[in-house]
Amino acid sequence: MVKKTLPLSQVYRWMETGPVVLVTTSVQGKDNVMTMSWHMMVDFEPPLIGCVIGNGNYTFTILKQTKECVINIPSKQLISQVVKVGNVSGRKTDKFQKFHLKRENASIVNAPLLSECLVHLECRVIDQKMARKYNIFILEVVKGWIRPQKEMSMIHHFGRGNFIVDGEKIHRASLKK
Amino acid sequence: MVKKTLPLSQVYRWMETGPVVLVTTSVQGKDNVMTMSWHMMVDFEPPLIGCVIGNGNYTFTILKQTKECVINIPSKQLISQVVKVGNVSGRKTDKFQKFHLKRENASIVNAPLLSECLVHLECRVIDQKMARKYNIFILEVVKGWIRPQKEMSMIHHFGRGNFIVDGEKIHRASLKK
Repeated sequence: MVKKTLPLSQVYRWMETGPVVLVTTSVQGKDNVMTMSWHMMVDFEPPLIGCVIGNGNYTFTILKQTKECVINIPSKQLISQVVKVGNVSGRKTDKFQKFHLKRENASIVNAPLLSECLVHLECRVIDQKMARKYNIFILEVVKGWIRPQKEMSMIHHFGRGNFIVDGEKIHRASLKK
Repeated sequence: MVKKTLPLSQVYRWMETGPVVLVTTSVQGKDNVMTMSWHMMVDFEPPLIGCVIGNGNYTFTILKQTKECVINIPSKQLISQVVKVGNVSGRKTDKFQKFHLKRENASIVNAPLLSECLVHLECRVIDQKMARKYNIFILEVVKGWIRPQKEMSMIHHFGRGNFIVDGEKIHRASLKK
């Protein structure tokens, strides 16, 4: 599916639903990817995202060093890869090769986009002061991408390999963003 | 529906799915409630939750003062109240009365439980250093409640009054929490 620009003003809509995401990083020519569910929007525009990445994870080390990543939102079709990526550390395994993950270059950051995902958010770490105590990073989204398609269902993690897929859509008049 | 204890070790499962929640507070005998979607788990046990509450919101002021709140997870049946609560400030309106919200006393904190919600998390603010720059509060869940029922579907906000209801459940063997 061809990707097009996702306006930065629209980023919060995707992230505030709480989807499982795949975080890609890259250091010294080697890419890595992890599964993440602990994240939240912090501001609308420029979009700021807070996320928690355990300090034992390889991504924690890379992120502190490179200060760049891509948040990729997978559809429900990718659920098997999402679980596999979450079960293995990238320190000794090339997860792209092992789990047949297609990737392509991002436009601004060095971390790759996962070609089969619905949305990609190219991010820079703008604050890691909270990483020491809480493993919290503050990311600024510098470029957004979307691959519009008929089936845009995201998945949400309910712990221990239990997932909830997006269901019914409802609209109610609201005065708020 | 009768409530029973939700073990603190299970709190993360509900919150990491990214549901819309209703945050109740209480100050000087007056209760308030707001709608919130910007939150994330920060640690498993004791459960720590990070959340973003705009500094223009009445809840921001109360939370800084009382350092207590309850996070209530509504089911899809409460969607109309969720939107109404999100559209009005509690500074001049008693939202419990106006929107017919049933409440009851919590066990540890002064903020009330919303009786029609699925899950209630009694919380104390343990860190508000990030509130000045990012409107981020770190909450510790001190008591969890659940009202088990046939229909436990949560809702997720997709911006501007668009909601996604929990759909299909999928389980995949996972090595991780």
